[in-house]
Amino acid sequence: MPDAPGARLQALRAYLHAAALQACLIPTSDPHLSEYLPDHWAARAWLSGFDGSAGSLLVTAQFAGLWTDSRYWVQAERQLQGSGITLMRAGAPDVPDPLAWAQGHLQAGDRLAIDGRVLDHAAAVRWQAGLQACGMVLVLDQDPVASLWPARPALPQAPVYEHRPPHACRTRGDNLAAVRDAMRAAGARWHLISTLDDVAWLLNLRGADVEYNPVFMAHVLVGPDETRLYVAPGKVGPELAARLAADRVALRPYDALAQDLSAIAPGESLLVDPARVTEGTLMAAQALRRVEALNPSQRFKAVKNAAEAEQIRHTMVQDGVALCEFFAWFEAALAAGESITELDVDTRITAARSRRPDFVSPSFATIAGFNANGAMPHYRATEASHARIEGQGLLLIDSGGQYLGGTTDITRVVPVGQPTPAQCTDYTRVLQAHIALARCVFPVDTPAAVLDAVARMPLWRHGLDYGHGTGHGVGYFLNVHEGPQAISVRAHARAHQGMQAGMLTSNEPGLYRDGRWGIRIENLVLAVASEPGEFGAFLAFETVTLCPIDTRCIARDLLCADELAWLNAYHAQVRDRLLPQLQGAARAWLLARTERL
Amino acid sequence: MPDAPGARLQALRAYLHAAALQACLIPTSDPHLSEYLPDHWAARAWLSGFDGSAGSLLVTAQFAGLWTDSRYWVQAERQLQGSGITLMRAGAPDVPDPLAWAQGHLQAGDRLAIDGRVLDHAAAVRWQAGLQACGMVLVLDQDPVASLWPARPALPQAPVYEHRPPHACRTRGDNLAAVRDAMRAAGARWHLISTLDDVAWLLNLRGADVEYNPVFMAHVLVGPDETRLYVAPGKVGPELAARLAADRVALRPYDALAQDLSAIAPGESLLVDPARVTEGTLMAAQALRRVEALNPSQRFKAVKNAAEAEQIRHTMVQDGVALCEFFAWFEAALAAGESITELDVDTRITAARSRRPDFVSPSFATIAGFNANGAMPHYRATEASHARIEGQGLLLIDSGGQYLGGTTDITRVVPVGQPTPAQCTDYTRVLQAHIALARCVFPVDTPAAVLDAVARMPLWRHGLDYGHGTGHGVGYFLNVHEGPQAISVRAHARAHQGMQAGMLTSNEPGLYRDGRWGIRIENLVLAVASEPGEFGAFLAFETVTLCPIDTRCIARDLLCADELAWLNAYHAQVRDRLLPQLQGAARAWLLARTERL
Repeated sequence: MPDAPGARLQALRAYLHAAALQACLIPTSDPHLSEYLPDHWAARAWLSGFDGSAGSLLVTAQFAGLWTDSRYWVQAERQLQGSGITLMRAGAPDVPDPLAWAQGHLQAGDRLAIDGRVLDHAAAVRWQAGLQACGMVLVLDQDPVASLWPARPALPQAPVYEHRPPHACRTRGDNLAAVRDAMRAAGARWHLISTLDDVAWLLNLRGADVEYNPVFMAHVLVGPDETRLYVAPGKVGPELAARLAADRVALRPYDALAQDLSAIAPGESLLVDPARVTEGTLMAAQALRRVEALNPSQRFKAVKNAAEAEQIRHTMVQDGVALCEFFAWFEAALAAGESITELDVDTRITAARSRRPDFVSPSFATIAGFNANGAMPHYRATEASHARIEGQGLLLIDSGGQYLGGTTDITRVVPVGQPTPAQCTDYTRVLQAHIALARCVFPVDTPAAVLDAVARMPLWRHGLDYGHGTGHGVGYFLNVHEGPQAISVRAHARAHQGMQAGMLTSNEPGLYRDGRWGIRIENLVLAVASEPGEFGAFLAFETVTLCPIDTRCIARDLLCADELAWLNAYHAQVRDRLLPQLQGAARAWLLARTERL
Repeated sequence: MPDAPGARLQALRAYLHAAALQACLIPTSDPHLSEYLPDHWAARAWLSGFDGSAGSLLVTAQFAGLWTDSRYWVQAERQLQGSGITLMRAGAPDVPDPLAWAQGHLQAGDRLAIDGRVLDHAAAVRWQAGLQACGMVLVLDQDPVASLWPARPALPQAPVYEHRPPHACRTRGDNLAAVRDAMRAAGARWHLISTLDDVAWLLNLRGADVEYNPVFMAHVLVGPDETRLYVAPGKVGPELAARLAADRVALRPYDALAQDLSAIAPGESLLVDPARVTEGTLMAAQALRRVEALNPSQRFKAVKNAAEAEQIRHTMVQDGVALCEFFAWFEAALAAGESITELDVDTRITAARSRRPDFVSPSFATIAGFNANGAMPHYRATEASHARIEGQGLLLIDSGGQYLGGTTDITRVVPVGQPTPAQCTDYTRVLQAHIALARCVFPVDTPAAVLDAVARMPLWRHGLDYGHGTGHGVGYFLNVHEGPQAISVRAHARAHQGMQAGMLTSNEPGLYRDGRWGIRIENLVLAVASEPGEFGAFLAFETVTLCPIDTRCIARDLLCADELAWLNAYHAQVRDRLLPQLQGAARAWLLARTERL
């Protein structure tokens, strides 16, 4: 059996030939369209050898290409070496997307397969129309790797548990009632949910089927009276099952969904989110009248209620304490000439968080990048490849924790040795962008995308920019990346961007000097409402993350009075909130790093 | 025959009954989907008595409602009094749009008529789907007012003329070649253009069929070899016809379009812009394969070339001279205690422009609003209703000119008597918003919508806002409102928003205190490119409008150093460019009003 990417590719081509397919596309996806995949669904990584978190592999008899975005070009180039797979730099000028490539290179009559079980409906519609226009055929009912992957990992089996008060601040009944109201308003009798964050939020359940996100593999079908949870037998214990039953949530085997969808009377209405349900799942619902809309839970869970906001503020104190302890150790070790690597940073910061009450796990893989490594926004140090922190430069640390009372995500940059004037200027520009967003005031329902221009203007004004969004939504003890709001110029045409009171979003402008250093300063901000006045209701951002922003890299002359005032007020608040929780070195470190500028 | 709105409505209801229609909608539109309509197409105004520039009238046996946006609520309320027509405040919470109203109030089986000849295709698709979903029928082939309007004005007959060098800075051949390239890229053999600005731009022709916009009623059909211009016989003289023929542009009667579309071989491809062609026009093209996209000329004409930019700069000097002469007269007359009304402002400002070389006409109806009138963003003084400018307050003047070398649009606010501190604060906030946009630097292709947040932030920060966009595209001796870019938060989801070098856009933030005063400060800005650097190519705005911004209303303490520097630099440039052209009182006025702050 094939045991290396080259041999695997060869076996895949033999399969294509036997199945009379001219091409297949292996996306990075699973039946729940998750950002983080169980190993069982990591077919693209298994086939190509490239294990970044995003990419699509397109294979024909003559060609194999891996599309991935700029975050992963360096890594993919290395990992694809000698594989016979061409790196397709997605987003670069003149690089067609996989559909356009297929349209240009396949012939009329050719058949291209994508496993419909892991392809979202909206994408399936796009592929279908695009191939049909060129006389080509989309095949959705085949899993090209099924027969080729002997040691394919099993599906995860971690137990499901309940998110309970005081950390859970809404009842399952309230959540279900809100979703049913939205179903009624949309004119739908049934609602199918496949995305794991929506499932977990709706039912106040959590799991550990994938790293970092406390979710579990399941679908939910909400009916007019009953709710059905499709989950592998054994994951939900009897006590929890009884509690669910009390809320009229019935357990069904994970595999029973298709059968149950088929059993609904033809013509009844089903609310589905075309970007959040796969084509394969929908195949069993073809007799139903589909109402297509954003999953209502996406909007509900984005808006944190007052009790959740209080939990988050409390959690931020815990996370801030962990960070102070970490940074106090780091600076002392550095001063003492200890050998520290990027991996040590990850270990130490996770250890500090693990000592805090209600900590569950990191919320994503820590990014600790020194100098040139920091210039790769999604860098991850590995045993095989990581830097020692020594000499002079900037260290970027992006990390976060899952706590029962909230999810955290923070980035700080600290100097090692004396920062250069160029490093200080860059750092200060990024800080100005961070402050510009933190100080925003704007009407309720302002599209999040437009706020990005306010954040970027201090950089744009000097011809500087960065290639990622400025803000993503953050879950409440759930996924560290959630929607629907995105503070990103490029998301300007995305629907459901309107900012509401209670939304929790990151504020993380950056600047990356290829091969030299990277800077990003990230806090989480909560949208809070002002009293409505003559011109309507406005929102402002409350910065909830509590950790000093290193002032040793600041070019003070570049800051205006308002910016300086914001920074001093922020540090006063950080000191005020964290000091009572700290002793010893961490306490001394906090005092030093929150000195008034 | 009916001669008053009440009687007209009654006659319309009789017609509906006879035609077995339960409802009809009369939009504000014509076969070219123009912003300014020839009187022939002003059926909504004729029926309702409301003569604002935007509105839709929906009539059933029991109900008549006029939908119009907040700009016109005051005026519509007055004009609809006693008409039996309900004012529907479009955009207000809980006011359904006309389609939703129809869905909620008509019965299954009911027939609703909209004249397809004046309904854009995209809207027709929306209405069709919306009514069908409720079992109702959309009737497109009836003009409900045709038989009721005996004295309906004839179609306009103004002659068509050529826009020639040096004012025309592109050849007809270049324009046609660019559009044909775009047709090829879209895979279309034919391209139908109905919008008058696109027609005029494409062929370097101008006319005077509607007020303010130098356009003429025509369609164009661009074929692979020949271009056909559908225009009423007699409008194009023999000499011009010969010049057009030399560029392979054939004249066809205005009415021959349907016949020519029907004569194209079935299945051939036709590029149309679904928002810029009416359903009625497309009926003759049903056998063709439609390729739907933005009219390519929309993007081409939005980007002014270097020669056009030079013409615009020259035209701005002429417009600035006219404005200095006007303001010098205004201030002297005010000081001398002369009686001045809002109508006098219009007369005098138009007279000053008329003295400038290459002036053609105003580019829109002058808005001169004193105090409370200025708080209505689209106020227009009339003989019957206008204010005398006396006592204390703020006068807002929004005006513009059509010149052979460009279209201008400028708003200034000047104090009458001593402005109050509250007026000065408001004025300064608006000025800060204006400066914030004027100083923007941003990457090429940034969506215009996101820049609006940068402009509004100085107002938002204090809970202030305004209900209109901050910037619209401006034509080159063409329509004063053009696309595709719109610096407007609400346009965030609109396509083709990417800013390009050469785009000419207004910068016009405002603030309106209902019943008290209105402020708006408007210049036109040209997007100019910087040298591409490490982070790509950037654009900045060159403010091309040349006229002092009154400094007597500025609360100087609110301005930061950068804002003050911008204002002083702008005034230095205005003085530098205009002074050599001015004598006497206008010269003295310019010197006084461009004093360094």
